[in-house]
Amino acid sequence: MTPIEGLAARLREFAAARDWEPFHTPKNLAMALAGETGELLAEFQWLTPEESATVMTDPEAGARVRAELGDVMTYLVRLADALDVDLVEAAHAKLDESERRYDPRTYRGTARKAPPLP
Amino acid sequence: MTPIEGLAARLREFAAARDWEPFHTPKNLAMALAGETGELLAEFQWLTPEESATVMTDPEAGARVRAELGDVMTYLVRLADALDVDLVEAAHAKLDESERRYDPRTYRGTARKAPPLP
Amino acid sequence: MTPIEGLAARLREFAAARDWEPFHTPKNLAMALAGETGELLAEFQWLTPEESATVMTDPEAGARVRAELGDVMTYLVRLADALDVDLVEAAHAKLDESERRYDPRTYRGTARKAPPLP
Amino acid sequence: MTPIEGLAARLREFAAARDWEPFHTPKNLAMALAGETGELLAEFQWLTPEESATVMTDPEAGARVRAELGDVMTYLVRLADALDVDLVEAAHAKLDESERRYDPRTYRGTARKAPPLP
Repeated sequence: MTPIEGLAARLREFAAARDWEPFHTPKNLAMALAGETGELLAEFQWLTPEESATVMTDPEAGARVRAELGDVMTYLVRLADALDVDLVEAAHAKLDESERRYDPRTYRGTARKAPPLP
Repeated sequence: MTPIEGLAARLREFAAARDWEPFHTPKNLAMALAGETGELLAEFQWLTPEESATVMTDPEAGARVRAELGDVMTYLVRLADALDVDLVEAAHAKLDESERRYDPRTYRGTARKAPPLP
Repeated sequence: MTPIEGLAARLREFAAARDWEPFHTPKNLAMALAGETGELLAEFQWLTPEESATVMTDPEAGARVRAELGDVMTYLVRLADALDVDLVEAAHAKLDESERRYDPRTYRGTARKAPPLP
Repeated sequence: MTPIEGLAARLREFAAARDWEPFHTPKNLAMALAGETGELLAEFQWLTPEESATVMTDPEAGARVRAELGDVMTYLVRLADALDVDLVEAAHAKLDESERRYDPRTYRGTARKAPPLP
């Protein structure tokens, strides 16, 4: 069992113990994921990019960021479990595609978006 | 090496090969994560909760949802790597807290929010 | 002066009185807007679509939704002011486009997405 | 009729002409709003704060930002109309509160968050 599978199993039990499965439709879980992502974003909104790179050295801000990352991960794993999607596999599949789209020589040092793959 | 660590390592190489590290500040990665979460959300916005539960049975919508989950996972893992946060550990820590906040008897079958822990 | 222009003017004074203009770059304001949108979303995440339609009849939930809509509007107007974009005009321009893309007969009662305009 | 009321009226007709009202529950509209906010965010994610301040001088990026602002405004106005909330009034009410929370002398030049009002 991978660490993600262990987390997904714990989340399943947590929801079952509270009869929360009816709330945990993919639609609702996607909303909860986006809500938590918004809270994570709020931790960074007034920081300069440079300040954001050292946010973990501030004990209070660092603890908040870690907690928000935990919340985002929780809902992402729960949503993927509900949809029976392997998150790591899905990410690798997208990276395979990005490697084809973004040739290192053409896209070195630029944030320009590549055209979609044919 | 866990699957997440393997994914993080591949993302580090992917960014390095394109000189994209300057773009990958935590602030920017949090924005990219939120942008991808918005695309995932869009897949569910007009579905009923019931339809959302069977979205993976539609080959086209299912493929889009899987791809968006892959994008969200990609930026979440890249962001956590930049901040040196263990996502699974952070999620378990938040669940420890939720287990204290949400007593199963008091919160059975209700989506009511618990007061913050003292 | 339209009501939006009045609001934008008040926001400009509010920021100036606190020397907050350096924080109010379009990038940061877009993040703040997304953070507030996430809080608005959280009000609806566990509601059924039917419950969401009557949320304003609950005094507490209704007050929270109104406050979150106020926050979203505040940052949207502040962002548009920083970019010198007329929000109502921009919305009408997108609607002109949607009227061309979504022929009423073809798209009656379906949430199917239209192909992009040529 | 204010410009926002005019836009809300046009949106009502647009939805009615396509029998789209059943899709336009507050829950779904909040999701669509968040999805569009995510697209707006994506326009700024790799820009420095300084670059974001001049984004409208680039014809292509400027046109995309304007279009995304139009989309966000469209769903915000449609959502507020569905909930019968006056957006400008709601924003002014939140600003009244922020003026009490954020004393200009105490919060000059700092992005520190004020404690909630008692």
